[in-house]
Amino acid sequence: MKIVEGTITLKLPEGSKEVLLKNLYLSCDPYMRLIMTKGSASDLGAFTPSSPLTGYGVSKVLESGHSDYKKDDLVWGFTKWEEYSLVSSTQILFKIEHTDVPLSYYTGILGMPGVTAYVGFFEIGSPKKGENVFISAASGAVGQLVGQFAKLTGCYVVGSAGSKEKVDLLKNKFGFDDAFNYKEEPDLDAALKRYFPEGIDIYFENVGGKTLDAVLLNMRVHGRIPVCGMISQYNLTQLDGITNLANIIFKRVRMEGFLANDFYHLYPKFLEFLLPHIREGKVVYVEDIVEGLENGPTALVGLFSGRNVGKQVLVVARE
Amino acid sequence: MKIVEGTITLKLPEGSKEVLLKNLYLSCDPYMRLIMTKGSASDLGAFTPSSPLTGYGVSKVLESGHSDYKKDDLVWGFTKWEEYSLVSSTQILFKIEHTDVPLSYYTGILGMPGVTAYVGFFEIGSPKKGENVFISAASGAVGQLVGQFAKLTGCYVVGSAGSKEKVDLLKNKFGFDDAFNYKEEPDLDAALKRYFPEGIDIYFENVGGKTLDAVLLNMRVHGRIPVCGMISQYNLTQLDGITNLANIIFKRVRMEGFLANDFYHLYPKFLEFLLPHIREGKVVYVEDIVEGLENGPTALVGLFSGRNVGKQVLVVARE
Repeated sequence: MKIVEGTITLKLPEGSKEVLLKNLYLSCDPYMRLIMTKGSASDLGAFTPSSPLTGYGVSKVLESGHSDYKKDDLVWGFTKWEEYSLVSSTQILFKIEHTDVPLSYYTGILGMPGVTAYVGFFEIGSPKKGENVFISAASGAVGQLVGQFAKLTGCYVVGSAGSKEKVDLLKNKFGFDDAFNYKEEPDLDAALKRYFPEGIDIYFENVGGKTLDAVLLNMRVHGRIPVCGMISQYNLTQLDGITNLANIIFKRVRMEGFLANDFYHLYPKFLEFLLPHIREGKVVYVEDIVEGLENGPTALVGLFSGRNVGKQVLVVARE
Repeated sequence: MKIVEGTITLKLPEGSKEVLLKNLYLSCDPYMRLIMTKGSASDLGAFTPSSPLTGYGVSKVLESGHSDYKKDDLVWGFTKWEEYSLVSSTQILFKIEHTDVPLSYYTGILGMPGVTAYVGFFEIGSPKKGENVFISAASGAVGQLVGQFAKLTGCYVVGSAGSKEKVDLLKNKFGFDDAFNYKEEPDLDAALKRYFPEGIDIYFENVGGKTLDAVLLNMRVHGRIPVCGMISQYNLTQLDGITNLANIIFKRVRMEGFLANDFYHLYPKFLEFLLPHIREGKVVYVEDIVEGLENGPTALVGLFSGRNVGKQVLVVARE
């Protein structure tokens, strides 16, 4: 990744049906690493070498050639990693109607990661009160929400994360019942047996690899594993082999991969559920905000070593 | 395993509520290997060292202390690997009402493997006409039925098996669209791409290991993997590592382990569906019949090297 400077005219081309955006907040998301590998995950789109990265962001409309949008509308959806972008109206997902919450939230709790947590936990996870929920990468953009949704549902919730600071956040800010630093657990199976002596009903999968393999030894009968991501594997050339999959047979476990993309029709219902909780302080959100497009590459790369604490947001402009 | 001879009195103990059975057909099933490993799959029951193996079988009632059963009833359910067994009435699953089909079928097509194929394909697999279905261990007790159910549903069906004889059965007897010998495919990914250029909608998983890893590279969006078994792994001390699981995320694939045990309430519906097809010759079934309890250990062990062709049945007595 490199920064390219240039001058453009902030004017929609004559007769264009596109929308000219000023980008405010850009979202650093793990899936972006996947589509940098040629041939992999092509369903998620692909980057074009020597063109700006594309990704989720919050933007302000400067000029619109499409009747759905007008000057000064705030929107979120797919934009490009640049100060100003010309995008097709189909790239814009939603107009932002509620601005009493931080605008950056539309890259996180009220954006793709929020929808991911919501559908992954409620639709794919089918949680029931009293169930045991384990979440990996639990302080991340998605994990911190899944944990809070699980507590709202009346579940017992334990999360794993990669530092003492993150473990403290899980226990003290997000209300997890317990949490541990996976880097300090030489035997993940033993750690899970300590926190879940009766086993795990729902494992919200964000990391893959050794954590998944240990979880498979600790699932309860009819358990569910919503598979949101496997971030531990995205930068490996030699992938970890999962050896305990046969456990899903006798335990009758359902593992299901999903993408928020398939569920945006639920966005109004999602907002109706979540906005009151945010306003009442019953669901909180931690962001790791980095200022300036020039710091974007470092912020994005940092996701894969867990440098960020909470949702990684990149500020291009505040309004 | 060893054969133990002894003499018993064929009489129900005074006041017993148990059922005295004469065992006719015993079923050799892959899950039996799993419960021979201490601590694994304990949900499926466990064998007691120095006691007869337990398993599915077809038996005739000699004497009954329970009002649900009477002398000469034919039943199927859990029995023991011996000539005569005293069992609790709860071990018997069903009374056999239809005897115009071979009695041995109640260890296979009309027994647990049949229910497994039925619920795995229809309930877990959610098939749609025109979808692409791949089945491993496709000539086995379950696979041969899944393929025929898939053809009845209007799917394109390919199976893999471990010999030319089995591949011929798949193509010529069971009506699969195509089939291949996995032992002759040095590159399973390439083989799957040859048979499924547009990818696989449903993979009916019987084997695990390298086949599963190759399948994961070839699943279509919203594909399903009913996980019935992973027989390639049951005798390994060093399990194969599955490295391509992350594909279930971008492809939004559902993998689901299941056991027939959870679905016996569907047995009447299953019989209503399957009996007419059997009678009309629209669904056929190949059994590998071994005579004599003394040949049981060899028959059971043979499952794990694919010695059997079709459902492995052990005849103890014909009536």
